[in-house]
Amino acid sequence: MWVQKRVQLKARARGFHLITEELLSAVPELVNYRVGVLHAFIQHTSASLSVNENADPDVRMDLERHFNQAVPENAPYYAHTLEGSDDMPAHIKTVMIGTALSLPITNGELALGVWQGIYLCEHRDHGGARTIVITLQGECFA
Amino acid sequence: MWVQKRVQLKARARGFHLITEELLSAVPELVNYRVGVLHAFIQHTSASLSVNENADPDVRMDLERHFNQAVPENAPYYAHTLEGSDDMPAHIKTVMIGTALSLPITNGELALGVWQGIYLCEHRDHGGARTIVITLQGECFA
Amino acid sequence: MWVQKRVQLKARARGFHLITEELLSAVPELVNYRVGVLHAFIQHTSASLSVNENADPDVRMDLERHFNQAVPENAPYYAHTLEGSDDMPAHIKTVMIGTALSLPITNGELALGVWQGIYLCEHRDHGGARTIVITLQGECFA
Repeated sequence: MWVQKRVQLKARARGFHLITEELLSAVPELVNYRVGVLHAFIQHTSASLSVNENADPDVRMDLERHFNQAVPENAPYYAHTLEGSDDMPAHIKTVMIGTALSLPITNGELALGVWQGIYLCEHRDHGGARTIVITLQGECFA
Repeated sequence: MWVQKRVQLKARARGFHLITEELLSAVPELVNYRVGVLHAFIQHTSASLSVNENADPDVRMDLERHFNQAVPENAPYYAHTLEGSDDMPAHIKTVMIGTALSLPITNGELALGVWQGIYLCEHRDHGGARTIVITLQGECFA
Repeated sequence: MWVQKRVQLKARARGFHLITEELLSAVPELVNYRVGVLHAFIQHTSASLSVNENADPDVRMDLERHFNQAVPENAPYYAHTLEGSDDMPAHIKTVMIGTALSLPITNGELALGVWQGIYLCEHRDHGGARTIVITLQGECFA
């Protein structure tokens, strides 16, 4: 049983954002799956997807501060600079964090841990709306 | 054909650990799959999963030393500090390394390279037992 | 519907390389899938797979320069040094970037964004030919 949807996420500021609810609201069919995998893929090269803590917002702020430190703007070795000082770091962070998530489904829900949520990691200053392809597969209830 | 299991890994010290055997012992059903994918998902935000060298233990020690260098404790820009100095670095490392693995199955076995093994990357000083959701899917032998 | 293939990529120099065409030419069966997922897994511990910009080659050069900066050769804390100064950094980069990709399939094609391509990230000076296991699954056209 396969379901596939395109989701347009609303534009967000640069930083790490919890998008679990926004993503799941696009696939109400999830409740039909007894066991399966939800695959989410972001069709961009300067924003990424991750899973991490869903509680203290400081975690998301610290992630943004750390990745800005680890992947600086205007590094002397960048040649790809025409699209703005936030662009090349955005590509690097995307390669580090990744563009796809595969998440287990159990009894009609994502089998996330208690403290886990889905993150959109927006690495551009003005990234705009981002498109995600969600693919559900699995065994449905009879 | 779908099989899904929860596995409780025994508690391990902070560092990178080979868990291929412990993980596979939880899914004896693997032998039934002619072709497929094994999906493993760790339900935590401060430990991660990876695939790397299964031979020289120095590789795992060097990985631990490198990630400690790249993601220091007590960085001046951390605001999330109440859960201990090892906590925020653990979240960052988890975002860098990832919480899920998808591995190909061929003729009843994982199609790993000769030198590859599955790693639990334990980023906390006292992370305790970790829970992994394993989902098998594929085409079984007739 | 499952298809699985082994692909031997031609040897490439150290660096980040676009391999979308070489990879897809190995799985002409892709056109049969109405919806699905393509899974690619590299059977090595010192080269990785990623998705990023398919246009300006400077992006790939900057990625190579950045990862060389972030994961230096001859770090004083490396113990695994017998296989050459490029070996331990190659393991670390592979853990950071990852060994597998899952990509959505829509109407017989990969559902990549306009600017996305598949990268082989070759972290060794002389890595040689690399083997990738490609697994297709999904719902085929009637």
